[in-house]
Order: sequence, then structure tokens, then C-alpha cells
Amino acid sequence: MVGLDPVPARFPEHLRGMPEARAALEFCLGILEAVEPHAAAVKPQAAFFERLGPEGMEVYAALISAARDLGLPVIADVKRGDIGPVAAAYAEAHLRHYGASSVTVNPYMGADAVLPFLEETRRLDAGGGVFVLVATSNPSSGAFQGATDPPLHDLAARLVADLGQRDGDYLDAGAVVGATRPSVGRRVRGLLPDALFLCPGYGAQGGGAGEILPLLDARGAGVLVNSSRAVLYAHESAPGDYRRASREAALGAKEDLLAAGVGY
Amino acid sequence: MVGLDPVPARFPEHLRGMPEARAALEFCLGILEAVEPHAAAVKPQAAFFERLGPEGMEVYAALISAARDLGLPVIADVKRGDIGPVAAAYAEAHLRHYGASSVTVNPYMGADAVLPFLEETRRLDAGGGVFVLVATSNPSSGAFQGATDPPLHDLAARLVADLGQRDGDYLDAGAVVGATRPSVGRRVRGLLPDALFLCPGYGAQGGGAGEILPLLDARGAGVLVNSSRAVLYAHESAPGDYRRASREAALGAKEDLLAAGVGY
Repeated sequence: MVGLDPVPARFPEHLRGMPEARAALEFCLGILEAVEPHAAAVKPQAAFFERLGPEGMEVYAALISAARDLGLPVIADVKRGDIGPVAAAYAEAHLRHYGASSVTVNPYMGADAVLPFLEETRRLDAGGGVFVLVATSNPSSGAFQGATDPPLHDLAARLVADLGQRDGDYLDAGAVVGATRPSVGRRVRGLLPDALFLCPGYGAQGGGAGEILPLLDARGAGVLVNSSRAVLYAHESAPGDYRRASREAALGAKEDLLAAGVGY
Repeated sequence: MVGLDPVPARFPEHLRGMPEARAALEFCLGILEAVEPHAAAVKPQAAFFERLGPEGMEVYAALISAARDLGLPVIADVKRGDIGPVAAAYAEAHLRHYGASSVTVNPYMGADAVLPFLEETRRLDAGGGVFVLVATSNPSSGAFQGATDPPLHDLAARLVADLGQRDGDYLDAGAVVGATRPSVGRRVRGLLPDALFLCPGYGAQGGGAGEILPLLDARGAGVLVNSSRAVLYAHESAPGDYRRASREAALGAKEDLLAAGVGY
């Protein structure tokens, strides 16, 4: 899965002079077409569009629409979490108005904050779902998520198991589980044998393909591995068309994961 | 503090025919002018603007600007929480681009997810800060935030104490502490004697003025009590101009809080 984190300062030279929102649109449209043959899904990171103001949200809308036209499922990385009526408004925004198929959600406020998103995906009935933050990949995640008894990541995993309903091979509630702490990943997989994992932390954040293995399910699959910066900004260390560099980086990541035994 | 949660279906009759974004702008501008004499701050809830698409974000921008012109501090209720570079993009969006003075932040991912917001408010140096979710007011909050040893709300409170720096009477990191569980509020106040609390749950969510008392600091103050729906939609049970109904509801809430002993 390729994350769309547009950072204008890292765009190729020919996109540097124009307004940032327009450059972000053009850059990301190029990325979508480039990675489409090798990506299972795309994950726009809402913050990088919000940063560009209302125009940034126009770009966000256009990219979600373009990804859908290419047949790529869209996981809106919004990490929202709020009381019921507010969560319902966020769900309506990202799933219905902007048209993402799935979203990431923060469980700090408990089931109330997660359920409205799941209900919206069930109403839309388009195969989407919700990925709940369980064990994230950032440096300070352990200090918080693993510091209690029971650990917070266990509570979050239990929430996923309680709220998810089977939809095909997996539950419609999934878990965000980083590649950077494999032992936690193995533990969470034990608690969630039937959940799809969204796995950040591979690539620029330092996790390798081997660190994905403990997260796999009994069939050796069940993990959507995300790479954002290492794919988007591959052109920084490869001369020529940025799209070609990104396509090669996406292919390289796919081959790296397959060679390590990550199945699909 | 008055929360801005625009729900078009609850707007007064004369605002029902027009496009939702335009109606939300007009409705909220009326609310701002109506409550200004009695409110210490306003708290736009980002979800209700996101729900209206890119145009909703134009409304969000216009309202933050109008509130500042009226001298009302703006706490953007965004509850964002993400890895460092993403948190920095959200901080730039809401504090610099949209111009809120403060934001609410989710601590699930630890210090990484909170610090970029604090750093942005310190750079802007406009008296704003960050309110970290500690003990929220929703029904399922206890099942998650109080279910571990040590309780999650203690960890979040410790994060506030660790990251906050004194700025005048209070730290620049505050805590979101609901009015609906006073015993938890008392405990969190014990951990955070010098923090400003943002207190939801008063009014439509069921908390009374008496339930704020355990949250007060040693001076009998230090709590920003929020009311959203009970002020915004006061017209539903009071005939005539909606602005007059909202102004009276804001005044009534202020008097209720002062009579109970909530100081400022």
C-alpha cells in the first residue's frame, strides 16, 4: 500500500514554482498512475491536505476519486476519534462525501468513537472498513501503549474483536500495527487471528520486510504493508522522471515483501 | 465556553432553504455575536465543518477569523494525534493557516503526537496552548481510560505535566476532563494542580454545575466549561430570534456556574 503524504518541499523541480495545492494534485496524480500496477491500495494522509487549507481538501477529494477510477481502494488516514455524533460527522465526511472506502480511527475514547465509522461503512456496503490504532510505529508509542496492565494495545485489540463483523476472509474492523515492534505485533496477531492489519513503519520509518512476518495470519497473509516516503520521494536518489522512480520503488518494496514471505 | 457544532437540520427555519455551508456560516456568525458578552472562548468542532466538504473548511476559516475579531480565543476541537511529521502538518493547518489559538489533541500515540502542536503554539507565541484528552465525557470513556493499572487518564495527565511549560498562571498544556465523572476529575486535578482544564459534558451531555467543583484548582478556578448544543439550539424551546435564545442560554449557563462556585 502506498501512502500519499505530499510534502511540496520534496517535489521534483518542475513542480516547485506553482501553488502548493496544484503541485500536490499533479504530483499525487502522477504517483497514483505510477504505482497502480504494484499497489493493493492507497492511503492519503489527511494532515498533508489539511495543511493546504480548503483547496487542499479539493485536492484530497480529487485524488480519492482518481484512485477509485484506477480501481485502487482508498484508506483515508484520518485517525479521528470523538464522541458519537461527532464521529458520525467525521464518518460522513470521509466515507460518504470524500468517498474513501476505509478510514483509520483512534480508540482513546472507546467504542463510542469507533462504531459510527463502522456503521457508515456497513451502510455504504462497498467492502470498506475501519482500522483502529492498536500498536503504532512511532518512537513514543511504547511508552504509552505498553505501559499499563493490561497493555493498551490489548484493550484496543479487544475492541477490534468486539466490534468487527466478518466480511469475506476478514473482519470489517482491522488494526493498525506497526512494523517497528515485532514482539508486540506477534502478541496482537494472537489476539486478532481474523483481522486485517494495516502496517506502517516499513521503509522510511525503519522496519524491514522480516519484521512483518510476526504480523502475518495463519495463511501467511492479512497485512497491508504501507510505504509512504520511500516510494513518493524515490526520485531524490534516482535521476529522471519521478514517476518512474516511484514505480520502481513500489515494485522493489513488493518484491522485497514477497521474497521475505509476506503473502496475499 | 461555547462550542460551535453546526448541525443544519437544527438551524432555525429561515436558514433551512439555502446551501448547508452558507447556512452554517450565517448561523454561527449569529451565535458568535450573540454569545460574545458571556463567553470566555469558542470551540469550533472540526467534524461539523469537514462534513460540509472543502466549502465547510472555508466556513471554518471565516468563523475563526470572526471570533478573533470579536476578541474571543478559539480552541479548535480537532482531537488530532499522529506521528511527529504528521502532527506538525496538523499543527500548521489549524494553528497557523486557520488561526486557532489552541487545539485539542489525542495522546494515544504518546509524546511524539503532542509535542509538535505545543511547539507550534510556542513559536506563534499568542497565548495559546494544547488541551490533551485525559478523561473524556462520553459513555464508553471509562471502559477504556479507567480499565488499566495505572489508569490511562493518569498516564495522559503525566504527559501533560511533563510537556507543559508555565505560561502565566497555567501550563501551556491543558487537559480535557469531562464533567460526567467527578471522582475521576478530582483525581486528575490532584495530578495537575497547575493545568487549565477544558471541560465538556456540561449541559446537553448531562453534567451539572455542581459536578464541575471537583475539577477546580486551589483558587477555585482553572476550568473552561464548554456548552455546545444547549446554547446553539436554545431556540428549539424558545420562540423568536435564535440569537436571543442562545445569548440567554449562554448567560444562564454562566450564572449557573457562578452560583455553584465556579470562579474565574
